[in-house]
Amino acid sequence: MARIVMKFGGTSMAGTERIRRVANIVRRQQAAGHEVAVVVSAMAGETDRLVGFCREANALYDPAEYDVVVAAGEQITSGLLAMTLQAMGCKARSWLGWQVPIKTDSAHAKARIEDFDPGALVASMAAGEIAVIPGFQGISPEGRVTTLGRGGSDTSAVAVAAAVKADRCDIYTDVDGVYTTDPRIVAKARKLPNVTYEEMLELASVGSKVLQTRSVSLAMKERVRVQVLSSFIDDDAPLADELPGTMIVSDEELEGLDMERQLITGIAADKNEAKITLTRIADRPGAVAAIFGPLAAANINVDMIIQNIAKDKGETDVTFTVPQADLERSQALLEGQKDDIGFFRMITDSKVSKISVVGVGMRSHAGIAATMFKTLADRGINIQAISTSEIKVSVLIDADETELAVRVLHTAYGLDAD
Amino acid sequence: MARIVMKFGGTSMAGTERIRRVANIVRRQQAAGHEVAVVVSAMAGETDRLVGFCREANALYDPAEYDVVVAAGEQITSGLLAMTLQAMGCKARSWLGWQVPIKTDSAHAKARIEDFDPGALVASMAAGEIAVIPGFQGISPEGRVTTLGRGGSDTSAVAVAAAVKADRCDIYTDVDGVYTTDPRIVAKARKLPNVTYEEMLELASVGSKVLQTRSVSLAMKERVRVQVLSSFIDDDAPLADELPGTMIVSDEELEGLDMERQLITGIAADKNEAKITLTRIADRPGAVAAIFGPLAAANINVDMIIQNIAKDKGETDVTFTVPQADLERSQALLEGQKDDIGFFRMITDSKVSKISVVGVGMRSHAGIAATMFKTLADRGINIQAISTSEIKVSVLIDADETELAVRVLHTAYGLDAD
Repeated sequence: MARIVMKFGGTSMAGTERIRRVANIVRRQQAAGHEVAVVVSAMAGETDRLVGFCREANALYDPAEYDVVVAAGEQITSGLLAMTLQAMGCKARSWLGWQVPIKTDSAHAKARIEDFDPGALVASMAAGEIAVIPGFQGISPEGRVTTLGRGGSDTSAVAVAAAVKADRCDIYTDVDGVYTTDPRIVAKARKLPNVTYEEMLELASVGSKVLQTRSVSLAMKERVRVQVLSSFIDDDAPLADELPGTMIVSDEELEGLDMERQLITGIAADKNEAKITLTRIADRPGAVAAIFGPLAAANINVDMIIQNIAKDKGETDVTFTVPQADLERSQALLEGQKDDIGFFRMITDSKVSKISVVGVGMRSHAGIAATMFKTLADRGINIQAISTSEIKVSVLIDADETELAVRVLHTAYGLDAD
Repeated sequence: MARIVMKFGGTSMAGTERIRRVANIVRRQQAAGHEVAVVVSAMAGETDRLVGFCREANALYDPAEYDVVVAAGEQITSGLLAMTLQAMGCKARSWLGWQVPIKTDSAHAKARIEDFDPGALVASMAAGEIAVIPGFQGISPEGRVTTLGRGGSDTSAVAVAAAVKADRCDIYTDVDGVYTTDPRIVAKARKLPNVTYEEMLELASVGSKVLQTRSVSLAMKERVRVQVLSSFIDDDAPLADELPGTMIVSDEELEGLDMERQLITGIAADKNEAKITLTRIADRPGAVAAIFGPLAAANINVDMIIQNIAKDKGETDVTFTVPQADLERSQALLEGQKDDIGFFRMITDSKVSKISVVGVGMRSHAGIAATMFKTLADRGINIQAISTSEIKVSVLIDADETELAVRVLHTAYGLDAD
């Protein structure tokens, strides 16, 4: 017997017929002899509807009241799933954030979960009752409703799994696992049986939106075994135990599981970056700080940075990327600091794409980056910027070349399915 | 300075533009120097939507989970009203049922409010913060969400008013007060400045659905001064203090307020009854008990009862009324008991109407009923049954004659406006 936390997203909860399908998966998992808790999102579209009301009511809405409004979406689906399970003969009850209680800090609309006592939840599960928990919500030290930010239900699921010491946290999504790359771009993409937390973090942060980044960080910190699975399965399809998706595990566990693994785990493309170049900046100490200080203060996340070799005039060009959503704000900020920074022109480009190769194998093997650069150069794809981490190499290219780049890299690293 | 509880129904809360109008009324009431709490319903249609989900999910739904689902409607509007008030520069916050906490019993979906400590609410109001409270919801001794039954927000408002010792509980509705009769039937109907709790109870129970009956009972018990007003007022219309609706008061207060009051306060028509006649029942002890015992056990509310004079054969006909919604169930029950009761035929009629004249003046004046019977007889309207209480006389007539009966009685009792 295992203790399993299952999580279903908004598409899976969109309407009572889909909730019935979810309930059937949950019922079968319990009938297989496990203790089960379920974390649910609001019906697809419902959170947008509620956020829309808030914007209409008050453009500068109080996040504490925003949380009261938007938390209602998950409250509704948790009650509906509990009663649907009951209709199937299961014992089940809903546990709202304040009832568990899932304690968070007071940062409304982007709260962080703190340690909480899962005693009541564990007792209920141990008594054979399926615990249905609305994702995304908690309770602040002041006793008010909090929410974790959009997509927070993944984090709720991992937090519950950590608290109840679950053997596994199954995240049911609209894909059936994590792939070597987007199967819509590369038909030969392969589903990965395992990825490590670090790999998943890098993949999540470069546009492979299978899981919310925070949920992966939390799973890594709390060592929760997370599995990504498809929720679009037939009522009589094999259970998660029998037909697994992708399991997210620690480095150590991976070594035991998959000795023959490729050096590279996956290739991700992210079209949500924009490039800014400031020309003819004085090549002196402090110039770069004058650029990035104000952006950091405005909470704009600068990713890749290149500073061209100083020209003979003692001037330099600086290029960097920001999220496309922050481009306008960044431009306004930099324009306001023009005298301080002392640049000549600002050139922006949102038709760029960030291509990343990710893999823990990179740590022990040289030449990964060199292969990437050569493969792209052979196809005439120009690299505009580079950034690297211990397990990732990213390059910025023209957005039009995204699909070509992903395809040739997928082949070059030997990831194509047979 | 007064302490005022204001309550707005679903039509007033239907959408952010209407919520803005409500917020403006609330803001102006506070700006006039009062401490203010507001109780709100869900947006019109929202509770029906949520109840629909519950029915689809599980025909025999668990009322505890039903409460989790349907309480979300008022949670949403309370957050939206609080943030709308903030947008107008007011201090405001929402207080969910479990936060106040509004303690109820455990009778989910039809819970009754128990005594609760309004300390936090009072402190917040005294500090100049407008307290926004979702109606209809509370918390059970087990810490679960409860709801009070459809229309329960009126009861929430009166309970909050009683707990915070409010000077007044203003119920904003889609009519601007309580009338001597339905103005759609009688153009000369007059708005009443005052009615007593007892009168309001009788009027509420005979089809004048301005307030939920339970809220009136609670107001009477707790001596809460309740005022019925229109929520459809312009942003610059006079406030409730300046342009009152109908105030519901005690007998004693009424005497001080309105010495010149008519004997009869109002005339109500109720088309939601159905008549059942059982013929040729043995005229023996226990025969009547055999009819009404099973109906009472099935929670069917029998109203008027007539037993015809026993005929020479020792047989009698019994006629009585039940709510139209319970007619089919009543027929099935009685058919099942046919042998026990020993009737010959069952005759039913739902084309009936109950006309009631209501007024506390009746207590000290004879002849009210006689005037009613004579007035109807003069117009050839046949009376099929009669029931009376201390302050009400009701008769059952053919439904086609409803409007005629109400009009002639309104004139006969001197209620027509000049």
